[in-house]
Amino acid sequence: MDYDVIVLGSGPAGMAAAYGLKEAGQKVAVVESYLWGGTCPNYGCDPKKILMSVVEAQARGKALAQKGLVGETHINWEALLAFKKSYTDQIPTRQKGGLEEANIATYAGTASFVSPHALQVGEQILSAHQFLIATGQQARQLDIPGQEYLKNSTDFMALPHLPPRVAFVGAGYIAFELATIARAAGAEVHVIHHNDRPLKGFDEELVQELVAHLQEAGIVFHFDVSLSEVQKERVGYRLVAPDFELETDLVIGATGRTPNLGALHLERAHVDYGKNGILVNEYLQTTQPHIYACGDVLAKEAPKLTPVASYEAKYAVTAMTKATHQPLTYPLLPTVVFGDYRLARIGVSEKELAAEPTKYHSQLLDLHDWYTYFRIQDQKAKIKLVYDEADHLVAVTCFSSLADELINYFVLVLNKKISPAELSDYIFAYPGLANDLNYLL
Amino acid sequence: MDYDVIVLGSGPAGMAAAYGLKEAGQKVAVVESYLWGGTCPNYGCDPKKILMSVVEAQARGKALAQKGLVGETHINWEALLAFKKSYTDQIPTRQKGGLEEANIATYAGTASFVSPHALQVGEQILSAHQFLIATGQQARQLDIPGQEYLKNSTDFMALPHLPPRVAFVGAGYIAFELATIARAAGAEVHVIHHNDRPLKGFDEELVQELVAHLQEAGIVFHFDVSLSEVQKERVGYRLVAPDFELETDLVIGATGRTPNLGALHLERAHVDYGKNGILVNEYLQTTQPHIYACGDVLAKEAPKLTPVASYEAKYAVTAMTKATHQPLTYPLLPTVVFGDYRLARIGVSEKELAAEPTKYHSQLLDLHDWYTYFRIQDQKAKIKLVYDEADHLVAVTCFSSLADELINYFVLVLNKKISPAELSDYIFAYPGLANDLNYLL
Repeated sequence: MDYDVIVLGSGPAGMAAAYGLKEAGQKVAVVESYLWGGTCPNYGCDPKKILMSVVEAQARGKALAQKGLVGETHINWEALLAFKKSYTDQIPTRQKGGLEEANIATYAGTASFVSPHALQVGEQILSAHQFLIATGQQARQLDIPGQEYLKNSTDFMALPHLPPRVAFVGAGYIAFELATIARAAGAEVHVIHHNDRPLKGFDEELVQELVAHLQEAGIVFHFDVSLSEVQKERVGYRLVAPDFELETDLVIGATGRTPNLGALHLERAHVDYGKNGILVNEYLQTTQPHIYACGDVLAKEAPKLTPVASYEAKYAVTAMTKATHQPLTYPLLPTVVFGDYRLARIGVSEKELAAEPTKYHSQLLDLHDWYTYFRIQDQKAKIKLVYDEADHLVAVTCFSSLADELINYFVLVLNKKISPAELSDYIFAYPGLANDLNYLL
Repeated sequence: MDYDVIVLGSGPAGMAAAYGLKEAGQKVAVVESYLWGGTCPNYGCDPKKILMSVVEAQARGKALAQKGLVGETHINWEALLAFKKSYTDQIPTRQKGGLEEANIATYAGTASFVSPHALQVGEQILSAHQFLIATGQQARQLDIPGQEYLKNSTDFMALPHLPPRVAFVGAGYIAFELATIARAAGAEVHVIHHNDRPLKGFDEELVQELVAHLQEAGIVFHFDVSLSEVQKERVGYRLVAPDFELETDLVIGATGRTPNLGALHLERAHVDYGKNGILVNEYLQTTQPHIYACGDVLAKEAPKLTPVASYEAKYAVTAMTKATHQPLTYPLLPTVVFGDYRLARIGVSEKELAAEPTKYHSQLLDLHDWYTYFRIQDQKAKIKLVYDEADHLVAVTCFSSLADELINYFVLVLNKKISPAELSDYIFAYPGLANDLNYLL
C-alpha cells in the first residue's frame, strides 16, 4: 500500500499529526505496535492523574480535620483501579475508531523500515512519500543483576492489589508521583536515588520542601544509594547497594525512559539516532529529509511531555505539507510534579539559570499564611520568582496544593507579557487564587 | 482636626483608598463605625469561603466514594466556626494596626456630616478638603410582620450552633452559598423566593442546573412565594405566605443589601442619593465635587463585589489626587456563586444579552464526560459560550466544581483578546483544566 504519509505510533504526537495531515489532504496511515492512543491515555499521565484524584481529595479532607471536617477516609486500591480501568479500557477502541472514522488507515503491528521509503508491518510492506516517527519512549531497564525482578510505572498502574511495601528506584517525577499514590494508599514506601539531587529539573530549594513534605507523610528517601543488585527473597525482594539493604514486596524502576527505537531498523532508512532518541534538525527532519520525527522519541532539550509532543506534531504537519515554514520554536513550557502538594515551574530552565548565576536574581516567598492557603490549610506554600538583570520575570517555581493552577495563570501572564500594572487592572473571581497574582508581581 | 482626605469606612474600598491616598502624599484619616476591615474580611466573602472550604473538601471526597475513596466525613459546626474565628478575630486589630503603621489617622465611631467640609464623630469635629464615602451596605430588612425574628448572613456566619432547620428568604448568591453550607453541615434547608428566577444575573439554563444539583443535595426551593409574615412558635418560627406555611428554627433574610447611609446625614453635605446608594458621576464624584464615593455604597450597574470596590478605590485615588484623569471604566467583571459546584460568569451581562437577543448566539456544551471532570467525578459540568454577530466570544457562563478556576482563565483570555489560534500555541500543565481552553474555543 502506498501512502502520502505513514505515522509510526498512535500516542498524542502520532494522533495529532495523523488528524492534521489528513485535514491537509494527505493519504495517511498510522501504525501502532501496542495500545492505540499510546502511553499518555493508556498507562501514562491520564490514568496516573485518575489515581491521583483520590489522593488529592483525601488530602483536602485531612487538611481540615481539626477545622470542622470530621471523619476518616482511606483508599481502596481495588476500587481505585476499577475506576482507572473504566477510563483506560475504552481508550484503544475509541482511539482506533476515531482514526477509522476520519478515513485514516490503521495497522496494528511492529513497524520496521526495509528501505528509506518502505516499512514492514507483519507480512505487509507499506510505502509512503513521507514518514513521521512518533513511537515515544518506554521505561529504562536497570543494568544490574536481578533487573528482571523490577516492575515499571505501567505495571504499578495496573497492580490488582497494592503490596504492603513498595520501593521506587529513581527520583524523577514518575517516582515522586507514584510514591505519593502508593503511600496515600497505605503502603510502606521507599525511594532510592543514586545521588542527592532528585527532580533535578526543578528548583532545589523547593524540591527540598516537597521531599520534606513526603517524608512527613512517611515516605523514606535513600539518597546517594547506587543499587548494585536485586535479590529474590522467599517473600518479596532485597535491594542491595554498598552499605545498604532494603526488603520490599515490589520494586518499581523509575530511572528514566528510553526511546522506542529497537524494532524500527532505522539504519535501513539511514536515519541517525543517539541513546536519547532520534536526531532531527530544527524542522523536525531526520537525516532523511522525508522522514520526520516528533514527541518523546526525539533527542531534544525540551521536556518529554504530552502537550509538548502534540505541539511538535502540529508543527510537523505544517513542515510536511507547506512549502515554506519557520524553524520550530517552543512557547513557555510549564512542568508539574503532581501530588497532594504539587511542584510546578515555568520559564528559563534550571540548567540555564545555574549556568549564569550572576545574570539572575530571585525572591522566595512563603505564602502559607496568605488567605488562599490558610483557607484550605496548606501547611506549606512557597513561590520562587526569578528575574533577569532588567528585572523581568523569567522563571517561576511554586509549591503548594494549588501550584498547578497558579502555574497555568503564569502561562498566560508570561506568554502575553502582562505587566504587573496591567494585571492590577484586571479583576478575578474573589476570593480565589488568581487574585494573588497582583500581590506576587 | 483638618485632613486632606477623610475616608468613611474601612472595608476593602476604604482601605485601598486610604493607603493609596497616603502614598500620594495626602494627610488621611479613616472613620469606621463597626469592625476595622469592613464586611468582606469580617463577615463577608472571606469567612464565607472559609466555611465553604470544608464543604468543598467533603464534596471532593464524596464524589469519589465509589471510586476508591472509602469512609465518611461530616461537618462539625462548632469546630468550623472556631476555624473561621481564628481568621476573623484578628482582622480588626490587624487592619487598624496597618493604618496606624502607615501614619493614617483612625477614628472609631459613626460619622455624620455637619457641613460639606466637616464631620462629627462622637464628640469630635473633623474637617477635610476632600471626602471619600465607602461605607458599604448591610442586609436589607424585610418589611413584614415578624421581621424582627429574621437573622442575616452575618448572624449565620457567627452561629454558635447550627439549628436542625434553616430557611433562607431570597435566592441571590448569598442565599445560595449559605444554604449550601447549612445543608452540607446537616441542616434541613429551605429557600423561599418571591419569583421563579433565582440568581437573575446568571444564565437561566445554568442556574436551573445549579438549582437541580442543590435539590438533589436536599435543599428545598419554594419559588413564587411572597412571605407575608413570620410568626414565633414555641420552638422556632412559622413562615407564612398565601397558600404556604413552613416551620423552621432559623430564618435568614437574604433579600438583598441596602447602602449604609442612615447616619451620614448626607443632606447636610448636599450629597444626593437614591435607595440603591449614592449618586456619582463618571469620576466617582458626588453632587459635591470634593466628596467622592466608591464601593458598595454606590448606586451603580457594576456588581457590588470586593474586587470591584478595590478597583474603584484605586480609581478614586487617581481622581482625587491627579489634575487630569479619564472617566472610570471597568475591566471584565467575573462573578461566582461558590459551592461544591460553582456557577461562574464573565462578559456582557445577562441583562444586555436579553435586551438584544438577535445580536447574540450561544453554544451550550456538556463537559461532564471530559477527562478533567471525569477524573474528579463531577456529575454535571457545562459551559455556555455566547458570541456576537462577528462570532467574537463576549460572555461565558460555566457550572462545575472547577468553574471559578475556569472563569479566571477567561479573565485573561478575554481581557487580552487571545484568539483560539494563539491559545493553541500555548502549552499548559498537563493534565489540567487549562488544557480544555483549546477545545472550548
